[in-house]
Amino acid sequence: MDKLLYGAAYYDEYMPVERLDKDIEMMKKAGMNVVRIGESTWSTFEPHEGEFDFYHLDKVMDAMHKAGIHVILGTPTYAVPTWMVKSHPDILATTDKGRGIYGARQIMDITNPAYLFYAERAIRRMMEHCVKHPSVIGVQIDNETKAYGTAGPAVQEKFAKYLRDKFGNMLVEHPELYDNMPEGYKGVSEDDILDYINYEFGFDYWSNRINAWEDFPDVRGTINGSFKGEFHRFQRKLVTDFLTWQADIVRGYIREDQFITHNTDYGWNGSSYGLNEETDACDNAAALDIVGTDIYHFTQDDLTGTQIAFGGDVSRSLKNDNYYVLETEAQGFPGWLPFDGQLRLQAYSHLSSGADMVEYWHWHSLHNAIETYWKGVLSQDFKENDTYKAACVIGNEWNKLGEHLVHLKKDNKVAIIVSQESLTAINSFPITSPVSRSFGYNDVLMQIYDALYKMNIECDIIWPQQIERISDYELIIIPAMDSASGRTLGAIEK
Amino acid sequence: MDKLLYGAAYYDEYMPVERLDKDIEMMKKAGMNVVRIGESTWSTFEPHEGEFDFYHLDKVMDAMHKAGIHVILGTPTYAVPTWMVKSHPDILATTDKGRGIYGARQIMDITNPAYLFYAERAIRRMMEHCVKHPSVIGVQIDNETKAYGTAGPAVQEKFAKYLRDKFGNMLVEHPELYDNMPEGYKGVSEDDILDYINYEFGFDYWSNRINAWEDFPDVRGTINGSFKGEFHRFQRKLVTDFLTWQADIVRGYIREDQFITHNTDYGWNGSSYGLNEETDACDNAAALDIVGTDIYHFTQDDLTGTQIAFGGDVSRSLKNDNYYVLETEAQGFPGWLPFDGQLRLQAYSHLSSGADMVEYWHWHSLHNAIETYWKGVLSQDFKENDTYKAACVIGNEWNKLGEHLVHLKKDNKVAIIVSQESLTAINSFPITSPVSRSFGYNDVLMQIYDALYKMNIECDIIWPQQIERISDYELIIIPAMDSASGRTLGAIEK
Amino acid sequence: MDKLLYGAAYYDEYMPVERLDKDIEMMKKAGMNVVRIGESTWSTFEPHEGEFDFYHLDKVMDAMHKAGIHVILGTPTYAVPTWMVKSHPDILATTDKGRGIYGARQIMDITNPAYLFYAERAIRRMMEHCVKHPSVIGVQIDNETKAYGTAGPAVQEKFAKYLRDKFGNMLVEHPELYDNMPEGYKGVSEDDILDYINYEFGFDYWSNRINAWEDFPDVRGTINGSFKGEFHRFQRKLVTDFLTWQADIVRGYIREDQFITHNTDYGWNGSSYGLNEETDACDNAAALDIVGTDIYHFTQDDLTGTQIAFGGDVSRSLKNDNYYVLETEAQGFPGWLPFDGQLRLQAYSHLSSGADMVEYWHWHSLHNAIETYWKGVLSQDFKENDTYKAACVIGNEWNKLGEHLVHLKKDNKVAIIVSQESLTAINSFPITSPVSRSFGYNDVLMQIYDALYKMNIECDIIWPQQIERISDYELIIIPAMDSASGRTLGAIEK
Repeated sequence: MDKLLYGAAYYDEYMPVERLDKDIEMMKKAGMNVVRIGESTWSTFEPHEGEFDFYHLDKVMDAMHKAGIHVILGTPTYAVPTWMVKSHPDILATTDKGRGIYGARQIMDITNPAYLFYAERAIRRMMEHCVKHPSVIGVQIDNETKAYGTAGPAVQEKFAKYLRDKFGNMLVEHPELYDNMPEGYKGVSEDDILDYINYEFGFDYWSNRINAWEDFPDVRGTINGSFKGEFHRFQRKLVTDFLTWQADIVRGYIREDQFITHNTDYGWNGSSYGLNEETDACDNAAALDIVGTDIYHFTQDDLTGTQIAFGGDVSRSLKNDNYYVLETEAQGFPGWLPFDGQLRLQAYSHLSSGADMVEYWHWHSLHNAIETYWKGVLSQDFKENDTYKAACVIGNEWNKLGEHLVHLKKDNKVAIIVSQESLTAINSFPITSPVSRSFGYNDVLMQIYDALYKMNIECDIIWPQQIERISDYELIIIPAMDSASGRTLGAIEK
Repeated sequence: MDKLLYGAAYYDEYMPVERLDKDIEMMKKAGMNVVRIGESTWSTFEPHEGEFDFYHLDKVMDAMHKAGIHVILGTPTYAVPTWMVKSHPDILATTDKGRGIYGARQIMDITNPAYLFYAERAIRRMMEHCVKHPSVIGVQIDNETKAYGTAGPAVQEKFAKYLRDKFGNMLVEHPELYDNMPEGYKGVSEDDILDYINYEFGFDYWSNRINAWEDFPDVRGTINGSFKGEFHRFQRKLVTDFLTWQADIVRGYIREDQFITHNTDYGWNGSSYGLNEETDACDNAAALDIVGTDIYHFTQDDLTGTQIAFGGDVSRSLKNDNYYVLETEAQGFPGWLPFDGQLRLQAYSHLSSGADMVEYWHWHSLHNAIETYWKGVLSQDFKENDTYKAACVIGNEWNKLGEHLVHLKKDNKVAIIVSQESLTAINSFPITSPVSRSFGYNDVLMQIYDALYKMNIECDIIWPQQIERISDYELIIIPAMDSASGRTLGAIEK
Repeated sequence: MDKLLYGAAYYDEYMPVERLDKDIEMMKKAGMNVVRIGESTWSTFEPHEGEFDFYHLDKVMDAMHKAGIHVILGTPTYAVPTWMVKSHPDILATTDKGRGIYGARQIMDITNPAYLFYAERAIRRMMEHCVKHPSVIGVQIDNETKAYGTAGPAVQEKFAKYLRDKFGNMLVEHPELYDNMPEGYKGVSEDDILDYINYEFGFDYWSNRINAWEDFPDVRGTINGSFKGEFHRFQRKLVTDFLTWQADIVRGYIREDQFITHNTDYGWNGSSYGLNEETDACDNAAALDIVGTDIYHFTQDDLTGTQIAFGGDVSRSLKNDNYYVLETEAQGFPGWLPFDGQLRLQAYSHLSSGADMVEYWHWHSLHNAIETYWKGVLSQDFKENDTYKAACVIGNEWNKLGEHLVHLKKDNKVAIIVSQESLTAINSFPITSPVSRSFGYNDVLMQIYDALYKMNIECDIIWPQQIERISDYELIIIPAMDSASGRTLGAIEK
């Protein structure tokens, strides 16, 4: 698309009064040209198991099309309907804290076959019914996907098989790994793979050896950081597998000119940003046409710019290309309401990082439930307000200037190498000192990123999977790389 | 009764040595004329299922009668015997934290049929055996009753039926409520009631719709504040139903001149007082002849007077009449031991709010268990001490002056309207700010109450159920009314 | 042994590379003459149920013997193999928090018959195979044993029987105890023992009476401090029983010149030391030939000397004899790395309290799992470092001077009487004040001990079991004795 996209998530399903025409009128006035719909509304369009009703989606797509506003369809799979959990309680993930209780989103086991069956059917029915609509420019699969701590018996069984395959293949390729172990490690377990796993993970400690596959212990209790780290890596792989599976389904329905994207969020707490511990955005990106992201950041006096810039640099670097901001705050929650001029500053900051879309979460503000005070462009009164008026300025500017501002590129000389494995490793043994709170991987990363930002040195982000890209830069910064493969180390040395 | 009542809770069951005659001698010397007995001693008077032995109650009633001291009988139902839980483990409430473990009081499911069967039998046997005794002036039903978070499957089933009845009746009376919903809400669920419930609660959000009654989800996990608030209201209704049920049983046994009361406690934490989130004292009051209350408050340098006054204003306003302080502190716990003169100051403060009784919890101090250091009039040594001596002053004054101080009335010009629903609502979304801890409904209420108190402006309390009373006042203050019915709003407007 | 022992715990099982010869060379250079091996390596020497392989133990014992280094064999029973928990999940202790999850050490129910079966077989096979080896000078049974909170149904059943025996015997010996109870307590329960138990524990409170043995409630929920205290005493007895059982097994295998010891740790948190709430070292000591202890303490600027001295005084007093420091820190964790001279100061401090052995935990530093940064004499690089060099000084001095420094005795004039029961009692009702954190038994004890230490007044420790020893002293200090038997009080009075 050779124009900037500007809009908001829109939920006709949540509206307490009939608002669609009026909302579209206000969107048009604000120069908005895109909405995201459909995600999180599974229980509305499949109210009873197997009975589908696309009333809201049809209605919104038709009205948006008539108004010349583009639609991004979101698959609804991150929030499951009541009927599904009632029939199949084990769809709820079993985590460190036991089996969850229905209510919140993102509480299911994304490997559960019953869940996957219902999810696939719902996606296919949604695609069959909606995706050919002329308003639809693309599909967002799921929402900020993680494994949600899923660690029930079936997941742990998959993990054991994953380990057997991984270390089995390693020994086939490098039999010297086995041979080089001290003699005492050999021939103790049921097979060579377990002998080697016991050696690599140091399971002799505290009598934790696994000497037969059927002895595989409940990984949730482990005191072995390497084992826990490997399980976290496996959980991230479940996320990639799940997103790839969804993308493959969706790809069977979309036109050439429609895209698949996903909104990855990055860890933030306090004023810091960083990698998301629970998902590997780089592995996930392979399944997507365009990278998407959710960027929420402190505002008012606490608006630093670094969070927007970091989220943008990460997103742009994943495919070395432009990306979409699929969610960012409009009014946000109390304390985030933008000062005069901040909404515009933020919007242009996104563009300057390479965003081709800025989409607010969300258009209106909810009248119920946990995000009632996480406010959208409009408040619960649906009236024009300062934030809406600021959006009108942005939207109308972009309608005029958009073709000049779209597809902005960077040619950075500096890159930071990041590492999900190091994140997990360092967070297992966080840095503590008498004068500071516990200090993890993202804190180290952000210290460096902030310093660059303040010196006005722009940078890209490199994952180990893209390690060959390091030859494109003049300066490479490698913070806190606690864990790295031989391939990564080799590339760095070279 | 045309005299003030002054006394203490008395537990012959807990005495490590035979003390009754000596205690009565000391009570007489202190001018005490009432004791409360019986509550919390179920396992003593029904040691084995179905075997009753009223040894202690008979002994105390006879001795008190002989000494001219009145007795209030407490039903023992708030602490269940070991045998009951051993035979019927599901008597223990299932809450947000799962099924409880035997030990503490107030851990049962007050809707459990087995519990209700045993409770009814114990109450009837207690009434048959004791209530006609000439010493007995009234009955206290249960103790500081709440629902104790009960939320097991049977309770949730009741809740679903309650919702179906409530919203079903609403639609019968006001069919326009259904008609006025946006079209998209109609005909989605199994019936009109669920369509309307989904609309009212906003269940489309995060796919939380209930489209068939058998899909009703576990309410403990809900992220919907309105739904949680409705469940809390339902839990408060369980309390009212339970107390009404007890009162109805007891009423079948008492004489015309005997009363039914109940000791409601009000929320306190830090130095603040306020409504009790878990029970609706106004709904409960209908079942009682005389309102009773437990008022515990900070003492020593932290004695402000507002806690006594607020508890009194609430209690007096419930029936616009005098009330009983069924429990208040004598020595209390460490840090509460009254300074010289404070016990008397407190006693007269109660009278000035309209109390006709002040009863300490408790006469002696426990030699075991969790309240060992929550001390009564006497310490574990049973000796005369400063607090006892202060009580002697009060008791003897009241014996002389009581007929002039009893039935004191107020004619206030100011009233505060309170709201249990608003309490729940605001506590779901507490007020936070950079400079303060989270700030809830009771904090707002107490800011206003404290300001009035400091200006020496006395006030009454009005519940929405008594909204017609607002015409009696010159100034009405309505703090933090986040949730109100049309009837309440109409009365206020008028 | 007429020499000082100096060494470290050694784990050939944990070594990532073959190190034994090099390690022994370094030990010899450091003047070390003892290692402890075997404890915590159950899954290595019994990799499959019933299949034993003593490869590592044989290898280390032979090499140590050749080098003239003594070996202490540790039974491995405090960390269970994966196969055992997989086959017998109920080996994991059920505690206040429910059933545990496999992973950490010290999570089993030490009364579980399946666990005891496997433990006994493993100990016997270890003894049969290893203990006669000429390198072996003694056996350490288990490691820092506790009951680990075990409170499942079988344990509670044992507890009920323990109570019935204890109070039954009491009534046989002292029938007047029953007779002296107020009348109301008699004939209420199923038998005299329960009547008396209800009286003694004050179970009438909150309806907690146990009127029949089958009504015995889940003790985990109790709000009765005396009952909880008795259960904690019972749990400590389980520890003593377990250690005595292990010692009896081992004693069937050892030679006259070999000893049985155990490493008791003492509570420490912040900068304080004190009794270990979960085990009664005095009761345990009867099963041992030589008392052993683990002493970990703050170092660097926080090295006070009192922790070493207190641990030493406790250990020496248990048998009024010399003792072994079976574990103490070498490099320890970050913040403990000894300053120049501190390691030597510490070693001599141990000797001056009466230690005949100082053994570091551990020789090398772990490459995996939760204690990776709890470092030994060597770091993960196995290189000579400052701590190793300091150890060389100590070891070589002791080789020269050891015969003059071994078996040092004290003749103290001052003793402190301690009490496990008082510890439990006071910690149930900790001392709180506006200006301090909650203050428990050990805080009181350490205030006194620290004051003596600063005045250079040396002292012994006396347990109630040794109360007759008080006649040996000129000054007896009895801190915070909240609970004491008549025998103890009688001896003190005398």
